[in-house]
Amino acid sequence: MSKNESMNENASTVSEIETFNIDKEKNFSEWFTEIVKRAELADMRYNVKGFVVYRAFATIAMKKMFDYYERELDKFGHEPVIFPMVIPESNFQVEKDHVEGFTPEVFWIERAGEEVLEERLALRPTSETAMYPLYSLWVRSWRDLPLKLYQSGSVFRYEGKSTRPFLRGREFIWIESHNVFKTMEEAIAQTREDMQIAYNVMTKIFAIPIIYFQRPEWDKFAGAVHTYAADTLMPDGKFLQLPSTHLLGSNFAEAFNITYTDQNGDEKIAYQTCYGPAISRIFGGMIAVHGDNNGLIFPFDVAPKQIIIIPIPKKKDIKHIEEYCIEIEKILVNEGYRVKIDLSDDRPGDKYYFWEMKGVPLRLEIGNKEVREKKITLFRRDSREKITFPFDDLVNTIAELGANLTKNLRNKAQKRFNESITDAETLDELEEKVNDKKICKIPWCSLDLDGEECAMEIKDQLAATVRGRDMREIDEDIRPKEGEKCFICGKSATCYVYVGKQY
Amino acid sequence: MSKNESMNENASTVSEIETFNIDKEKNFSEWFTEIVKRAELADMRYNVKGFVVYRAFATIAMKKMFDYYERELDKFGHEPVIFPMVIPESNFQVEKDHVEGFTPEVFWIERAGEEVLEERLALRPTSETAMYPLYSLWVRSWRDLPLKLYQSGSVFRYEGKSTRPFLRGREFIWIESHNVFKTMEEAIAQTREDMQIAYNVMTKIFAIPIIYFQRPEWDKFAGAVHTYAADTLMPDGKFLQLPSTHLLGSNFAEAFNITYTDQNGDEKIAYQTCYGPAISRIFGGMIAVHGDNNGLIFPFDVAPKQIIIIPIPKKKDIKHIEEYCIEIEKILVNEGYRVKIDLSDDRPGDKYYFWEMKGVPLRLEIGNKEVREKKITLFRRDSREKITFPFDDLVNTIAELGANLTKNLRNKAQKRFNESITDAETLDELEEKVNDKKICKIPWCSLDLDGEECAMEIKDQLAATVRGRDMREIDEDIRPKEGEKCFICGKSATCYVYVGKQY
Repeated sequence: MSKNESMNENASTVSEIETFNIDKEKNFSEWFTEIVKRAELADMRYNVKGFVVYRAFATIAMKKMFDYYERELDKFGHEPVIFPMVIPESNFQVEKDHVEGFTPEVFWIERAGEEVLEERLALRPTSETAMYPLYSLWVRSWRDLPLKLYQSGSVFRYEGKSTRPFLRGREFIWIESHNVFKTMEEAIAQTREDMQIAYNVMTKIFAIPIIYFQRPEWDKFAGAVHTYAADTLMPDGKFLQLPSTHLLGSNFAEAFNITYTDQNGDEKIAYQTCYGPAISRIFGGMIAVHGDNNGLIFPFDVAPKQIIIIPIPKKKDIKHIEEYCIEIEKILVNEGYRVKIDLSDDRPGDKYYFWEMKGVPLRLEIGNKEVREKKITLFRRDSREKITFPFDDLVNTIAELGANLTKNLRNKAQKRFNESITDAETLDELEEKVNDKKICKIPWCSLDLDGEECAMEIKDQLAATVRGRDMREIDEDIRPKEGEKCFICGKSATCYVYVGKQY
Repeated sequence: MSKNESMNENASTVSEIETFNIDKEKNFSEWFTEIVKRAELADMRYNVKGFVVYRAFATIAMKKMFDYYERELDKFGHEPVIFPMVIPESNFQVEKDHVEGFTPEVFWIERAGEEVLEERLALRPTSETAMYPLYSLWVRSWRDLPLKLYQSGSVFRYEGKSTRPFLRGREFIWIESHNVFKTMEEAIAQTREDMQIAYNVMTKIFAIPIIYFQRPEWDKFAGAVHTYAADTLMPDGKFLQLPSTHLLGSNFAEAFNITYTDQNGDEKIAYQTCYGPAISRIFGGMIAVHGDNNGLIFPFDVAPKQIIIIPIPKKKDIKHIEEYCIEIEKILVNEGYRVKIDLSDDRPGDKYYFWEMKGVPLRLEIGNKEVREKKITLFRRDSREKITFPFDDLVNTIAELGANLTKNLRNKAQKRFNESITDAETLDELEEKVNDKKICKIPWCSLDLDGEECAMEIKDQLAATVRGRDMREIDEDIRPKEGEKCFICGKSATCYVYVGKQY
């Protein structure tokens, strides 16, 4: 992750650091591909299609993201476990809808060494069928419930769609939480807790605005009663699905025989939920939402480097400037920040460009004047503001500006998300708007399978999807007025849905 | 991980908590199997042979162990990355010794969905052949070196030997660090750094005594120049191999074309090392080394629960005792400790047994007297000492006794390890001693392939292995005296080696 390393690929053609300058709004796809390469986030040259290498700069951030998410799960009483990555085919076939949904995407292990295995093993695409046979053994009585466990790791899906680093791949890294309850009500409450956890982490720490939708019946997790999924909006106006939580009811409990004895001694079926934040995908969404034409901008808490210190030496003053930089670094490292002094031979201006491209939230510029006056000059990556403050205010200023930067990223992204939501009167207008990076809220006949035909029409005509009903509208029971009609079929509308392009 | 959960399996046969009492010295194998089950560390009922489920109580500890290890690697300038879990067969075949060593153990993926893959994929048994093709792209000039990267996750080996939870399985979780240098000297220095990191973490935090051995030529990593491996001693007198570091020289660099341009513009071959602490196995070693006849004893820093608070209520005083417990819990949680108050209906004595079996290092007992006198009674799991101290000393006392407990575990284990080392004059004596849980230091002809025949004789006759030469003896150039002969062949001895049974 050294700067030199990043320059490898261009080493023979350029002698100085190239500035990153791609119009993110106009050429988002190019921007994303280029920044992934230039900032050394992932390497696409791994020689298995759909599999990429996550490099250090992305991995450090994703590890922080895992930490924040796991800590939040712990806080709500979930506990970590580690299940095997391989699932016997017979487990896989237990729940009918689930096996239908996932079988086309499964990587199969049939052989080990020279031997043919007695039973094929699936490389897990998700872990319901690994975990629930054990849940059936662990859950015996009402005292064992609720059971709230999660695990973090890789899952594998043989994606037919074209893959992109972080956003869609054949291996991705996630947390999956699997929970068991005595009643459907508790299971429903868990899906609400999952949404709350997502809001806490996604918006407060990662600064990514989300809307939670109840997905239509035709677009839910294979085997679920309901799927609730968070969507954010990408710079090209497309929805990106982020953490989704699934109300499984007793579908899997019946298939896997997860029952408990209640306080009266009667045997009862259990109710379940599962929840899956894909950290690699959230990372992809996060850099897409916050970056600008000069490169990445990381929210402060998850930035792989939070603060870069640039000495600006005039010939003979190098030594005391460096000493001052080291003094500052020590204080910040001691506070737990991820800090670096760039002591390379590049010109300060080149260093600025480089670390801006890498998305480091705060830059400290230390020259003669700063040393002489015991001051620090600070540049904010988000607002591009520069301020100078006394050395003694260092710790407070960093804490304050770090939090402020994340908040600013969040507000900007939220504003953009809100401004993208509009409505449409005709199919032509809907098409025009979703092609113009908008998402439209329209009245809809039904989220049940009755409504699927209308959704197919939107898909066929506009290549857009119906994302479902905003959970806030479910909570507040917001419904179309008497007489409002489904946008497509003209039947009486039962709810509003959001329509847009998707990843 | 609730206590009730643990009681499931016995729910129909016992109404009270059974005390755990197995003579660890006499029946270590039974002790290990039973404690894994009773303390809910792993579940062996997963229906794929050699794969187990790590339950919450073990997973929480292993996550802490990963944290400590990774932090230490970070401190020494290593950075995390994430490579795919699958490796194309063609990568696998590049380094001749490596492919020979690992091919019999590889799980192969040949199919995805309904399609047959163009090329078979290995489920990684170790990641040299995944990583080094990319290293070849990343390393161009001397400026890119050293390159020091690690990743944490699962690896898969189709073990022929019988498996045991944590100690040997077909999937295990580890950290693997892969490093590239300009010179052999730097690579050698890295293996020393790896050993230092192991000592820092293994002995200081996990309290596990280790000896680092240079393994004999016939027992090194497939593709390495030298293998240096840490061994600890299990309660049944067998060696358990823990983190090993491998000097790869330029064996892999030549196979994978990892070269760099030096400061004179000349192309040079690079030198490499790799290093792999298997956290699941270290966990197994840790509980084996420290436990006693009453169950587990966790070193303080990695204990899944560090402090258990037991209220000892007399009928009418429940409320203010509970309040006092909650006050104590709050303070300790605020200090970052993993704490629990056991408010279940079980009798205090049963709670004592249960949490002793679970290995919680410190127990606080809170009754009327403690509340009245604003004191706290504390029980240490290691020494079984009880002390009472003023409430105001809580934070200091916990920090001090926690550190002291870990130190005590370390000293006890080290003493035992030292006392197990002995010597032998004859093959009969050697056999007797290694069968009596000892390890013997004997003069040896050669660690090169010349010495393999002698090692085979020991293996055939005694079912024991030659572990290699103690690194401290290499450092201090301790060698047999003039005239000392190899224990087996009688040729002139060049070094001492350790012999013992192994896992």
